[in-house]
Amino acid sequence: MKYKEYADDIARLIYGGELAPGQRLPSVRELGAQRGLSPVTVLKAYHRLEARGLIVARPRSGFFVAQRVPAPLPQPQPSRPVARATPVHKGDFIHDILYASKTPEVIPLGSAFPSPTLFPMARLARSMNRAMKRLDPWRAVTDLTPGSARLRQQLALRYQISGIALDAQELIVTDGALEGLNLCLQAVTRPGDSVVIESPTFYAALQTIQRLGLRALEVATDPAGGVDLQALENVLQRQQPAACWLMTNFQNPTGACMSDANKQALVRLLAAHNVPLIEDDVYGEIYFDGHRPRPAKAFDREGGVLHCSSFSKCLAPGYRVGWAAAGRYADVVQQLKLGTTLSTALPPQVALEDYLDEADYDRHLKTFRAALQDGRDALLEAVRDFFPEGTRVTVPQGGYFAWLELPRTVDTLVLHQRALAHNISVAPGAIFCAREDFSHALRLNYGHPEDRRINRALKWLGQQAAELAGTQAA
Amino acid sequence: MKYKEYADDIARLIYGGELAPGQRLPSVRELGAQRGLSPVTVLKAYHRLEARGLIVARPRSGFFVAQRVPAPLPQPQPSRPVARATPVHKGDFIHDILYASKTPEVIPLGSAFPSPTLFPMARLARSMNRAMKRLDPWRAVTDLTPGSARLRQQLALRYQISGIALDAQELIVTDGALEGLNLCLQAVTRPGDSVVIESPTFYAALQTIQRLGLRALEVATDPAGGVDLQALENVLQRQQPAACWLMTNFQNPTGACMSDANKQALVRLLAAHNVPLIEDDVYGEIYFDGHRPRPAKAFDREGGVLHCSSFSKCLAPGYRVGWAAAGRYADVVQQLKLGTTLSTALPPQVALEDYLDEADYDRHLKTFRAALQDGRDALLEAVRDFFPEGTRVTVPQGGYFAWLELPRTVDTLVLHQRALAHNISVAPGAIFCAREDFSHALRLNYGHPEDRRINRALKWLGQQAAELAGTQAA
Repeated sequence: MKYKEYADDIARLIYGGELAPGQRLPSVRELGAQRGLSPVTVLKAYHRLEARGLIVARPRSGFFVAQRVPAPLPQPQPSRPVARATPVHKGDFIHDILYASKTPEVIPLGSAFPSPTLFPMARLARSMNRAMKRLDPWRAVTDLTPGSARLRQQLALRYQISGIALDAQELIVTDGALEGLNLCLQAVTRPGDSVVIESPTFYAALQTIQRLGLRALEVATDPAGGVDLQALENVLQRQQPAACWLMTNFQNPTGACMSDANKQALVRLLAAHNVPLIEDDVYGEIYFDGHRPRPAKAFDREGGVLHCSSFSKCLAPGYRVGWAAAGRYADVVQQLKLGTTLSTALPPQVALEDYLDEADYDRHLKTFRAALQDGRDALLEAVRDFFPEGTRVTVPQGGYFAWLELPRTVDTLVLHQRALAHNISVAPGAIFCAREDFSHALRLNYGHPEDRRINRALKWLGQQAAELAGTQAA
Repeated sequence: MKYKEYADDIARLIYGGELAPGQRLPSVRELGAQRGLSPVTVLKAYHRLEARGLIVARPRSGFFVAQRVPAPLPQPQPSRPVARATPVHKGDFIHDILYASKTPEVIPLGSAFPSPTLFPMARLARSMNRAMKRLDPWRAVTDLTPGSARLRQQLALRYQISGIALDAQELIVTDGALEGLNLCLQAVTRPGDSVVIESPTFYAALQTIQRLGLRALEVATDPAGGVDLQALENVLQRQQPAACWLMTNFQNPTGACMSDANKQALVRLLAAHNVPLIEDDVYGEIYFDGHRPRPAKAFDREGGVLHCSSFSKCLAPGYRVGWAAAGRYADVVQQLKLGTTLSTALPPQVALEDYLDEADYDRHLKTFRAALQDGRDALLEAVRDFFPEGTRVTVPQGGYFAWLELPRTVDTLVLHQRALAHNISVAPGAIFCAREDFSHALRLNYGHPEDRRINRALKWLGQQAAELAGTQAA
């Protein structure tokens, strides 16, 4: 998907003013020669920019920067939550909102999942069949938690390839990342403790904090670059949290991704305060710019980072196979798992063993990422086209969520209700925080690029948002 | 397996004195005609009794009651625990003991599982293959918790067949019964609450009580007939427990089974005190006397019984498919499940859907029960033959555990250590109670009838027990 990266490079030059309105772009042949790109790649990049209104084609003259370049979408500002621990009472509320939209008739802009059609389900079924045919019945006993030894080796290898030395001993197979996160938080806290989370945060963190009788400590977060380290340091000095639960790569809901330097500083800071980091990295494989962002775990030397991920978001939804690399807490997490769900189902584990050995996971990931990137671009275009003046939106470099801030007067709980009555789901900002923040924010899912209903739904949503804002749609 | 039942009938008559030593038994032909049994059945029953030393064959004369009938094994007495709630601190201890014996080299007398070779794994793999080939990818979303609608209908139907009217709405598919039990207990308690359990009890109840910060209230229990209702009533009146967690059929570790009348009285008593019952019924299908014992759930009119079971013990180990029929707590349990493991893996659910539709589950169960009954008989015989004077043992009518009480001077933790050094696992009594009880008791697994190492291991164990008791082996 070189052409997309290349188009993004040019878009940045245009927005940055390095390429002025009306300026002629190098010809397809010139540029191809200069950059080592095939003419087809250059042409596809130009067509992409044309579709976004950034350049225009003049017959027999070539491509030129548009005279009126559409303004780039403004991005949301960093959050400024109250830095005081609070109990959470939102579990039921979150549940009710999310599960109001479970049926397939509802257009899934509020969904937590990408389209199931994007996964290699038939190939996985073949792997399942092969693996089950030769399954040794005793594995039902020998592969109890921490789980399949083979799968854990394969996982350790994938960590190694991305530059993280990891002993398979520290890996525990879990029922999706969600179980791993739950068990890890349980392993390092006691009721009454407070837990640092992002603002906004993944709602499951709030639900877990509530269930375990903990308190939430929301920390200022930049919707592009992630948690604010200065704000975090202040909190660590004053509040003695027992743990920190962050999503360092393509955060849900904002899409924020921390830089390597910030991740390294984060790990150092937490180690200095002896606070374990529970790192939710389920979107790390879904990157758009050509390389996988490293997790904070890559910088951990003391076993204080409990890294959780899964195959649910990028390979095998419904298989419920996740894992925790739980560092020096691995034994505790393993015991908690044995006492709560005993062990993760074996058939999905052996199917994945076979798939990872025999199929081309990385090729699937490539196609998958490209589909999601298309979804993102289509979403951003629709927001630009249909949403009212004053709307801000993140431009995620991975994952399948974007975060919108609408004009302050829009109550997205009202928008959610109206949308649901219209068979459209959205995820209102209120479910992503412990207090009453983000009432004008919205998480939108762009993981259904094949769904032809989406564009019309976005248009309708934009109109409703404009109406609620008391303005005209853009 | 009519001949086994018939042999048991005759054994009872002999032990009861209705058939006197030396008395001639009816001829095979007479009895066959009289009882409508085939001569082969009668002969098999007689051979069984002969093997147990209860009757002798005299050539050309027929079968006679033995002159010296071996004494029936004495059964353990009802427990008398301290009826005061106590926090539990045994989680790690239990874990260490159970997981010391995870490798297949260890002879599995302490195992929690029956032999994996007793299950129709190949037939299940065929069902898995068929179901995965035609799986609609959208089911990864539509079949989120509470789980597969088809499977829940099939479960509701099985309840109906055993006389329990149940709405599929109240069923939640869980990751094995263990998750169901955990979530149900969480749904009805808050930290600090006390929970009624049997004495001895299934160790997972202790682990869950510890993890949730609850207190254990152990109630007197008869190793044959289950919880003592009078003792329970006293506790309900004085201690205000928040919940009751019992295993009504073929209890782990004793094999106790409550009578229908007692189950009915139990449900009435708990309803009167407004205390929910968490009923663990994972062994209910493994009965030896021809009919499935009803669960307490069958007598529940107010939705106060949360009935948990699974396919792990009798059909599909490693599939991790269980369920909770959570009565009026179904919504709460469903929300807890969504927040902790999101959903049970789909492939095992659809494989079971296909299996239940297309295969003969009840035929498998018949063979399975017969194998376990053989295992039980062999175990009881070995205990009679090899264990020291003063040993007591339950005679379970189902499941795959028997409960031994050795002479008081035997410390079964020491026996456990010695056995493990000898590559034999046993489950010492200390892991089945919140306090320091049952130090001379042992749970033995008879679910590996095909394992030729078992008999020798039991002989060795009996000798060790005798040595520890300071007596000679019987």
